[in-house]
Amino acid sequence: MHAITIQNNALVWSDVPDPVPGPGEVLVDVAATAVNRADIGQRLGFYPPPPGEPEYPGLECAGVVTAVGPGVLEHHLGERVCALLGGGGYAEKVVVPVGQLLPVPAGLSLPEAASLPEAACTVWSNLVDLGGLRDGGTLLVHGGGSGIGTFAVQLGRALGATVIATARAAKHDRVRALGADVVVDYTTDDFAVATLAHTGGRGADVVLDIVGADYLARNLAALAPRGRIMTIGFQGSLSATLDFTTLFAKQASITATGLRHRPRRDKARIVRHVTDQIWPLVAAGTIRPVIDRVLPLRAAAEAHHLMESSSHTGKIVLTNDEPRAACRRP
Amino acid sequence: MHAITIQNNALVWSDVPDPVPGPGEVLVDVAATAVNRADIGQRLGFYPPPPGEPEYPGLECAGVVTAVGPGVLEHHLGERVCALLGGGGYAEKVVVPVGQLLPVPAGLSLPEAASLPEAACTVWSNLVDLGGLRDGGTLLVHGGGSGIGTFAVQLGRALGATVIATARAAKHDRVRALGADVVVDYTTDDFAVATLAHTGGRGADVVLDIVGADYLARNLAALAPRGRIMTIGFQGSLSATLDFTTLFAKQASITATGLRHRPRRDKARIVRHVTDQIWPLVAAGTIRPVIDRVLPLRAAAEAHHLMESSSHTGKIVLTNDEPRAACRRP
Repeated sequence: MHAITIQNNALVWSDVPDPVPGPGEVLVDVAATAVNRADIGQRLGFYPPPPGEPEYPGLECAGVVTAVGPGVLEHHLGERVCALLGGGGYAEKVVVPVGQLLPVPAGLSLPEAASLPEAACTVWSNLVDLGGLRDGGTLLVHGGGSGIGTFAVQLGRALGATVIATARAAKHDRVRALGADVVVDYTTDDFAVATLAHTGGRGADVVLDIVGADYLARNLAALAPRGRIMTIGFQGSLSATLDFTTLFAKQASITATGLRHRPRRDKARIVRHVTDQIWPLVAAGTIRPVIDRVLPLRAAAEAHHLMESSSHTGKIVLTNDEPRAACRRP
Repeated sequence: MHAITIQNNALVWSDVPDPVPGPGEVLVDVAATAVNRADIGQRLGFYPPPPGEPEYPGLECAGVVTAVGPGVLEHHLGERVCALLGGGGYAEKVVVPVGQLLPVPAGLSLPEAASLPEAACTVWSNLVDLGGLRDGGTLLVHGGGSGIGTFAVQLGRALGATVIATARAAKHDRVRALGADVVVDYTTDDFAVATLAHTGGRGADVVLDIVGADYLARNLAALAPRGRIMTIGFQGSLSATLDFTTLFAKQASITATGLRHRPRRDKARIVRHVTDQIWPLVAAGTIRPVIDRVLPLRAAAEAHHLMESSSHTGKIVLTNDEPRAACRRP
């Protein structure tokens, strides 16, 4: 088969051996995968795949089951699925543990379905499972125009939370249309000031953070009593001063999480909850896939370049066939 | 009645008005209360009681119900109780919301029962509810000889966790006898090195921290993947550098918590779980009250002086009658 391999920090369309499903795994013919910021880290060499996972990039996909490993009784050849992957989505075929398979939500094309698993699992895990966001709470989403951000804004809204998002000005209309109550231009305004102003001084119960150190003090300032900072990525400075007086005054928590390095049983638990709680919202149209554009998998390098520019809104999807009209454009 | 009031940062035995129970509250004749480090903070003026709570210090007590407020049907006059308080335990009488009452565990004297609520609720909340400590996990307890520490060591052991505790050398035998697998002299040894050495390099799943900033880097170093630092107090420096590379590499979390400022419904929930899950362990002798000494409430200033010296092991109990033989000494 073909896969995108990494050679000298570049993405190369390569001939590689077909993967073979082991016990409890299926082989999926990949119709589409999607780009995550972690894939750029992997390309640059500082985010290697966990042991035992496929070495090619790609943390999600959608496609069709074409083989099942020993002991797999609950899936059949020809079944349309999407999947959360430990890696290997940038390929024509990928092996998936059955616990990481999800059905294709009703009414979605395979490229649309491929855009959801990583965002849905990350956002559910951080907002609902670990973050405990509730109806009537307040969510601050950084990067509200990103793949994760567009999903988080919609899920926060669906949960009944007030949603405050940061984004570049060019993305504001789009992010507001997804359900954000307030959108802050982080290049000109202080998001902590804006969050406190919009919540009568109370702050956000959950902050979904993608920056880390450079936002630490302002995230803490923006936090409500017993608020939770959920940091899912970091960029910029590697460390920052943590003020324990504020941490205590707010009884706050700071958590760094990532899906990729979790044990498979944790991923399976998250996938189960996402299927039960989130897929019905997708099927009902309450949460919609937000796809910036669809490119051929061979053009993965162009897709990375686009993501590095941060000019996209939502997900960048890569397909093994030429992009088709079947995939609705945003 | 009499109560200990705070005047110019000193504890003064004073005549004050009797409190009156409101709806959903009972009046307790205080047989005994116990000293917490937070009381010292209150005396020094930097830890005021939350709005609506009694102004005198004292976060726990045991005694007898002598009046019930409107609508209280489930408690009767003469009932022996202990209680988690928002304040006011350093007195002859205190008003308690019914959700914060616990039964006196079978076989315990009132002074023994008075020594448990704050430690039991704090430790259960941090290790079990928020910390998720499990059978087979590893717990690092700072201040293993303190009131909280002696309780945490015993609960960690009862949960099936490996327990590593820090304490001054003079307290090591005692802390080991309570169930600690390893006791580290924090004045001479690096607890992070010791924790990693004892866990084959894996580290602690939960750190119960009472220091904050000055321990941050070492607590992070001592942490296992997906480990949780639960900081329940701080002393020394007010801020420290947080290294996001390590936070991410370990997928770690840092949480500051305190019981006193939580809403009453949260306290009631914790008290309910402690009554259900922890009191049976106390009744069975698996967790025992550890009392350094019992002093008359009038001698509260001496008790604070003793706690500030950190030479005690376990709790310092204050009684309204002269201390009696009925209270077992450690």
